[in-house]
Parts: sequence; C-alpha cells; structure tokens
Amino acid sequence: MVISDSASTKRQGVNPLGQGGLASTAGVLMEREIAEQPTMLGRLLSASDPQIAEAANVVRQREPSVVLIVARGTSDHAALYLKYLVEVHLGLPVGLCSPSVHTLYGANPWGPRAMVIGISQSGGSPDLVATLAAARAAGATTLALTNAPASELAHVAELSVDVRAGAELSVAATKSYTAELLAVYRLVEAFKGRRRGADGLPEAAAAAVATSPAAVAQVVGDLTLASHLVVTGRGFAYPTAREAALKLMETCYLPTLAFSAADLRHGPFALLSPHVPTIVLTPAGRGAAAMMELVASIVATGSPVITVGPGPARAGTRQHVATQHQLPEDLAPIVDIIPLQLLALALARSKGLDPDTPRALQKVTETL
Amino acid sequence: MVISDSASTKRQGVNPLGQGGLASTAGVLMEREIAEQPTMLGRLLSASDPQIAEAANVVRQREPSVVLIVARGTSDHAALYLKYLVEVHLGLPVGLCSPSVHTLYGANPWGPRAMVIGISQSGGSPDLVATLAAARAAGATTLALTNAPASELAHVAELSVDVRAGAELSVAATKSYTAELLAVYRLVEAFKGRRRGADGLPEAAAAAVATSPAAVAQVVGDLTLASHLVVTGRGFAYPTAREAALKLMETCYLPTLAFSAADLRHGPFALLSPHVPTIVLTPAGRGAAAMMELVASIVATGSPVITVGPGPARAGTRQHVATQHQLPEDLAPIVDIIPLQLLALALARSKGLDPDTPRALQKVTETL
Repeated sequence: MVISDSASTKRQGVNPLGQGGLASTAGVLMEREIAEQPTMLGRLLSASDPQIAEAANVVRQREPSVVLIVARGTSDHAALYLKYLVEVHLGLPVGLCSPSVHTLYGANPWGPRAMVIGISQSGGSPDLVATLAAARAAGATTLALTNAPASELAHVAELSVDVRAGAELSVAATKSYTAELLAVYRLVEAFKGRRRGADGLPEAAAAAVATSPAAVAQVVGDLTLASHLVVTGRGFAYPTAREAALKLMETCYLPTLAFSAADLRHGPFALLSPHVPTIVLTPAGRGAAAMMELVASIVATGSPVITVGPGPARAGTRQHVATQHQLPEDLAPIVDIIPLQLLALALARSKGLDPDTPRALQKVTETL
Repeated sequence: MVISDSASTKRQGVNPLGQGGLASTAGVLMEREIAEQPTMLGRLLSASDPQIAEAANVVRQREPSVVLIVARGTSDHAALYLKYLVEVHLGLPVGLCSPSVHTLYGANPWGPRAMVIGISQSGGSPDLVATLAAARAAGATTLALTNAPASELAHVAELSVDVRAGAELSVAATKSYTAELLAVYRLVEAFKGRRRGADGLPEAAAAAVATSPAAVAQVVGDLTLASHLVVTGRGFAYPTAREAALKLMETCYLPTLAFSAADLRHGPFALLSPHVPTIVLTPAGRGAAAMMELVASIVATGSPVITVGPGPARAGTRQHVATQHQLPEDLAPIVDIIPLQLLALALARSKGLDPDTPRALQKVTETL
C-alpha cells in the first residue's frame, strides 16, 4: 500500500492539475513525441534521402508550370509552408486544392503540366486518394508525402516520399508535422539543385523543446480563463499560426482564430478586446518589421498580447516567449511550432484534459 | 422636455436593447444595403456587361493555364467562390495568392500563361495593387474586379470589371459581396461562352431578404449567450460559411470559426459541445448529402445545430432557417448569404452594437 501511495503521489507530481478522472498519463505520448523532434530532425538530416532526390529529378525533367497541393488538418499547414517555399524559391504558382472539386463535382482541373502533391500523415483519407488518382490519370505528376509508405495515398501516386517521423501515437500530431515540414523543405532544395542544408536545425529544435517552462506556465495562466484567442503570423510564420490554433483547438477545446496579419486587419480586428488574448509570432526576417507595427495596434485594443520570437519583449505586451535560434526565416517554422506544441500540452493538462485522446477525434480521419 | 423624453422613448423602441450611447440608427445602413440586393441583382442582370464580355474575350484568346486570385476579407470569399467556379466549370487550376509572397519576399510566381485577378471592394489596398502591377509586368493577364472603377487596382490591371454595387456606406460589406459574386459568376459564364443566365436570382434574393424575422430572432436568442460558434459548409457553400463567420466577427465581435465539412472533421471537431452552437449550411445539390451525415455527427456532440437550407428541419437540430429558392448549387451562394447577413445585423442590434461602424475598422483597409 505504501508503494502504491508513493506511486500515486509521484503521478500527481507529474500532472498536478489532473482532475475529473484524468489519467496520470495525460499527454505523455504528446510530451514524448514533442521531445523526440530534435533527435528525429538530426536523424533525417544525417543522410541524403533517395526518395526526395528521385522526386526532385523527375519533377525537374517534367518542368511543371503549376503546383497543386491537397491536404487536411495539420498536413494542410505543411501544405501552406510548401506553398510559400515553392512560390518564393521556385517562382511557380501554387494552389491549395479542395478535394470536393473532384469528389463532389467531378472536376479534373489538372493537366500534364501540373504537379499534384498530397500530404497526409496517415495516407488514408479517401478524398485525397481519389484526388491523386484522378490527377495521375489526367497526366499530372503526382507525389504523395506521408508518414505511412504502405498507405493507399503513397500507392496511387507516381512518386512517394516517406517523411519518416516514426510511429506517432498521440492523436495530436507533433513530430509528423515537423517531419513533413523538413521533407518539403528538402524537396524544394533538391528541386532547386542546391544544398543550402539545414545547419543548426536539430540544435535549434532542442533549444525550443527546452523553452522555459516558467514562460509557458505564465502563458497558460493567461489562457486558462480565456474563452477564445487569436493567433497571428505573417509570411513563413503564417502556417505556424494556423497549426498552433489547430493544436489549441483539438487538445484544449479552446476556440482559436488564426489569421495572417493582413487578413486580421480586414475585419476580424474588431474581435480584439481586453478579454481576448492574442498570440503574435514575431520571427526574425522580412516578416518581422510588419509584425512590430501590428503588435502596437493590437496592444492598443487592450488585448493581452503574447509574443513568440527572438529578442526582448516589446512595449505593452503581456508575455513574451523567447526563441533562441538564428535560423533563416524560411527554415524557422520547423522549430517555431515547438513552443506552441508545449503550450497546447501544458494548457490541456491544466484544464484536466488528455491531449493524446481528444474527444470525438481519431488518429486517422476519413473524409470523402 | 416632454418632446425630448418622447424622442428618447421612441429611440429605445426602435432598438430596445440599445445601450451605452448606441444611436437609434444602429445598423440602418447595413439593413438598407441588405434590402437593396434583390433590386441591385435585377439591375445588374437586366443588361449585358461590356466589361465582362471584353475580359472574357481577351482571356479566351490568351488561354491561361492557371488562375491566381488576390483578395482580402469579404472579397477573399468572392475569390473562393470564383475558385470553385473556375475549377469546376473551366477545368483550370486556381491558386489563392498571399500578396506577402511578392511584397515581403520579392517573388513573382506569375508568367504569361497565368491570369491574375484582384478582387477588392475599394480597389485601394496597396498589397493588392503591388501584386497586380508585378503580375502585369511579368506578362500575366491581369484583371481587377472592384466596386471602385477609378481605384488604383482598376488602374494597374489590364482588364477591369466594375461590379456596380453602388455606394456602400456600412463598414460591414453586404451588397458589394453579392455584386462581386454575380460578377465572377457572369465572368465564368462569358468565358465559357454560354448564357445559362441567372433566372430567378432577384426573386430568390427577395425571398431571402424576407426570411422569417421570427426564425432569425430565434437563432439570435440561441447565439446571444454563446461565447463562440462554428459555421460549416461544403463545396460551393464553403465561401458562404466563411463570409457568415466574418460578418458575425466584425459586427457582433462573436468569435466564429468557419470550416469546410471535411476540415472540421480533421481536428476542430473536438471543439463541439453543448456550449458551442454550430450553423450548418445545407443547400440543395451534390454538397447536401455529405452535409446530412455531418449534421447527425454534430448533433451527437450535443452542439445546438442551426441549419440553413431548403426543406424541413432535420432530426435533433435546434433551429432551422428555411431557404425558399430552387437555384442551382453554383448560383445559390449569391442568395444564401443573405439570411446570414440578416442574422449578423439582428444579433449585433440585440447586443447593443452598431454594425455600421465596428470598433477598430474602417471602410478601406490598407495593408502592405
């Protein structure tokens, strides 16, 4: 009995705010998978990836004139990151496709000059499979990017890249997201035929995993009583804002509205008030200057502003979570999501929720 | 003094919940502009539009291989509608562009085979102007679709279509949105060289403007105590879900999360609970069957479900706002937003807010 009590006390120590039948194991899978990311990124970078090299070779020969991407949920944010990379670095236009255009309305807006990419952790969603199959039949160059090389999506596409995140057990995707981001980054680099590499990425990820728990706890304190919040980022940081919002929604059931900085100004800005916290991503790079002006405008609404980025806190903001790396702006998203994954995990636990098993969700979501 | 008291009483009668200095005129502009839509649509349809005909002719000669659209806020939802129309009816891929790709990162992912369309009520946003100017310089076919034919956006583009909504005075855009939708619908029809027309559209809009005030008031009652809600639609109804959410956010300061039916299942579904109402758009057409299954799943979460569409209420839903028209699915969005505009207006008034002048917003938003 003494041993059992001791074990129970220890469990409570791990998760002091657990309540309402919450298992002591709440979020252990998500916590472990967040922590695995530095090692995973180092492993992925330690060797060249023949699938990425082959895909880049084939695509270079085909010279596509447009890139179209289908994805859902977290993978849709990897798609958004890929869209910025392709437009900025390859100068090709990119469309994010709605599978319903094909599955509901029978359209097939892909020709031989299109490259159609499906991104899916599970590779199992029937609407993505149907879209890639139709695109391939129409002569498009098709590529499946999954964490499941034996999946149907990988099977129907001409080209396939396994993002090799390893098995992900928490329903809330974390390491499969950063593995997807790294895979699309390397794909664009390979396509461009350059090897700028990703020096310092695993170390930056390790620093992000070690983000001050006190800083995260302070933000949790601010968000605990919020009924909703806004997350905003610009350019390469916009996918991070979207993914952070999804993590907070699926693990904490906290309604989180993600907007690009410009879209926020076109209407949703009216939402902001002293009752609505705003998380503003302020990475270094060209997006940063625009965000500084925005931070001042948001502070003026009375919204408690939480910034996540390098450097010191800005005037009038309520909390600042400092990031420690010097990565280029287009590589930073692979790391900058990590403090926000930690925030979602900590906030879920503080609410007595288990982020590994959100209500009403399953690991593989099938949509038609 | 008696006269003054009487006037004060009358004001309170017009807007019984008005408080905190709310003028008796709260929302009169928005109300008038919502009501103008049937007449406006009839006027626009009463004659052919030479600008649309010219644009369609030029575009047909150029045979673009991809269509790219830049827009913000409400106009971004017209862009989304245009994306579905072009992909489904013209079989061309469409990308919604982030102006930041050009304005922040200097990219120019548009070539001579691209058609680049800017949609903006005011035609004044510098980021859209810069994007269209760069696309034109790169040899793309450029088209500005605005409610301001003398605007800078109309000036920098090779082709220009005035959506002719007339002056819109409420900050919350209503008639300029439906005028944009009609213009893009007609543009796609003209490009396709068919004149399927839009029979019954003004009458359907009139029926929508006459949506049962009692039904709207019942929904207002449900939403008054909600701290946030979800709106969902699929296919051609997805732009309507997005625009409804923006209207509720900018006029009622009510956080409203819009998801396509498929995206809702990939994560945000965990948000749903008895405390979170869901508005489900259930128009007729191919999108409808998929939505019926979704309605049952949402009802099972305990979320109070409000459906907006034709036919009777579905089992387990809390409210139903019946639509009265028989328009084809791809034309229905021009009308189906109207009950939701009425809802935003009524809810804003019930909260003592003036939707004509939302806090922190101006009619013309300039982003860089």
